[in-house]
Amino acid sequence: MNLTCPLPTKQREKILLAHGSGGKLSSELVETLFLPAFGRSNDILHDGAFFSIGNQKLAFTTDSYVVQPLFYPGGNIGDLAVYGTINDLAMCGARPLYLSCGFILEEGFSLDALTQIAASMNRAADSVGAKLVTGDTKVVERGKGDGVYINTSGIGVIENQCAKPQKIQPDDQILISGDIGRHGIAIMSTREGLTFDSTIESDAKELFSTLQALDQEGIEIHCLRDLTRGGLATALIELAETRGVSMNIDERSIPIHDTVRGACEFLGLDPLYVACEGRMVLFTPPDHAEKALSILKDFEPTAQSIGQVLDQSNPNVTATTFIGTRRILDRLTGDQLPRIC
Amino acid sequence: MNLTCPLPTKQREKILLAHGSGGKLSSELVETLFLPAFGRSNDILHDGAFFSIGNQKLAFTTDSYVVQPLFYPGGNIGDLAVYGTINDLAMCGARPLYLSCGFILEEGFSLDALTQIAASMNRAADSVGAKLVTGDTKVVERGKGDGVYINTSGIGVIENQCAKPQKIQPDDQILISGDIGRHGIAIMSTREGLTFDSTIESDAKELFSTLQALDQEGIEIHCLRDLTRGGLATALIELAETRGVSMNIDERSIPIHDTVRGACEFLGLDPLYVACEGRMVLFTPPDHAEKALSILKDFEPTAQSIGQVLDQSNPNVTATTFIGTRRILDRLTGDQLPRIC
Repeated sequence: MNLTCPLPTKQREKILLAHGSGGKLSSELVETLFLPAFGRSNDILHDGAFFSIGNQKLAFTTDSYVVQPLFYPGGNIGDLAVYGTINDLAMCGARPLYLSCGFILEEGFSLDALTQIAASMNRAADSVGAKLVTGDTKVVERGKGDGVYINTSGIGVIENQCAKPQKIQPDDQILISGDIGRHGIAIMSTREGLTFDSTIESDAKELFSTLQALDQEGIEIHCLRDLTRGGLATALIELAETRGVSMNIDERSIPIHDTVRGACEFLGLDPLYVACEGRMVLFTPPDHAEKALSILKDFEPTAQSIGQVLDQSNPNVTATTFIGTRRILDRLTGDQLPRIC
Repeated sequence: MNLTCPLPTKQREKILLAHGSGGKLSSELVETLFLPAFGRSNDILHDGAFFSIGNQKLAFTTDSYVVQPLFYPGGNIGDLAVYGTINDLAMCGARPLYLSCGFILEEGFSLDALTQIAASMNRAADSVGAKLVTGDTKVVERGKGDGVYINTSGIGVIENQCAKPQKIQPDDQILISGDIGRHGIAIMSTREGLTFDSTIESDAKELFSTLQALDQEGIEIHCLRDLTRGGLATALIELAETRGVSMNIDERSIPIHDTVRGACEFLGLDPLYVACEGRMVLFTPPDHAEKALSILKDFEPTAQSIGQVLDQSNPNVTATTFIGTRRILDRLTGDQLPRIC
């Protein structure tokens, strides 16, 4: 179910939860408020910024995390914050090197919980050899926060080939690095106190190692995008619009855990829009797809080839459904699952 | 008045407002929780981190801003967030180059206010030729935030001499770049709805240009520290303890605007502990002090020489009072002015 939320102009003069959804209103906020204010074009639109210092090409990225609950099956806000920033750097073709962490703590928050969160952050950074090198702590009164909010910013050095939407070609194969929707459902089921046959753990993990392996094997990657707020559908729609191409994915080939599928049916959610935090889509030329998929499966057996780029006639994304028809995927207007990351 | 706040162990198991004060509890949180969790010694203790990428020495810093009110005489949370990160980089001897901004917005926050804040951020970055290059926006429900919280992280390239506490020498002169306490009193008077004879504007401003001028004139600077939470006294105490030296400052020479002094008396605050956001202390050898002060005065006429480093017998900071006695300055335990930045 794609929640739509028609907004009268008056209402748009205030921040809505949907401005943080990663959907239409998020893009609108960046394009109509932040980019003009910062006097920039769309070069800060995705994941991170690139620049050179001396003879080094660097990437720089930032993300704040407000996920609720703070602890959920498979992780907590701490490792989520570190994996998120590591993955943003990895999507820029960068090796994550140095991370910062800024904590906004609510008065009364448990020091034990904070200790666990900090330990998870360190383990997550260690997983790719990155270092948490600088930090900051602020405290707000009870009722002005929600336990803890974390900002992680990161610096990486560009090592890998430069994948970008502009390189997407007709006939490119679309691969996904693993089954979708686990993170969103892990959060949602904890938040709502739902239990299913099996516990769904968040998919939050680092993607840098996978990309490094693909690069070492000489796999050509035209474009990369990690799936976060808005899920698989939102990522593909943004890429299709940026590049001006049409794409088709086959719903029958999209890896979704049975429990995630069941939970989505129960909750009235379309799994294609549910957030992941350790999954990416990759666009490869057809002759690289098989080898690429085999490498992806070494890291995550549920990886799949899910579709292809069609042509440049009409920028959109369609999905072949289980009954063989095609539906057009549209951006979310409202917020399907607020505060998922 | 130095608020003390004896804390029974039980109470310390939860976050208190004072953990965000920049005083004793803030240090304790870093030293006993974050540094052990991140497997690090005290190299992330101050302002920023240093590292080399290729042949470039870089500095990296992060700060979250939770100031309340969001708008006050002389500024708002946006320019504060940018000046704060610029100044942290400047304190590392770095030229601020690239900044990130992470916004945590509360549902219902005014888009007009956000537009003003973003514009202020851009002006502040422009003042030193730095660029806001990457950003992130999250939205939390009403009652889970306080309008807007901003994280700014920054990257700079090390250009200036490496000033650090370890270089402080007996007989070094202690200079201050301008009158103290304006930021804290601007915030406090707005928050409490107090009016004084003249409006006190925040001192928030960039310090990079001043440092660049000192460097160009060949001024030797042994140590630098910007005055933020905890004010002048806290900065000096930390430096005295880190270096293991005693220092004396003369209260009669410390520049304080009459209205700030009056407000402090009225509010029961010691101005030496009131936050600044555009002031620093500098330690110079005696033969560089006069020229250094003259350059400081070019940027801010209220700059002064306020004291000197004594010896290495007993790490402490004393202040010669208006009646000629000496008092020992101690760290704040509680939080004199919460959410000042």
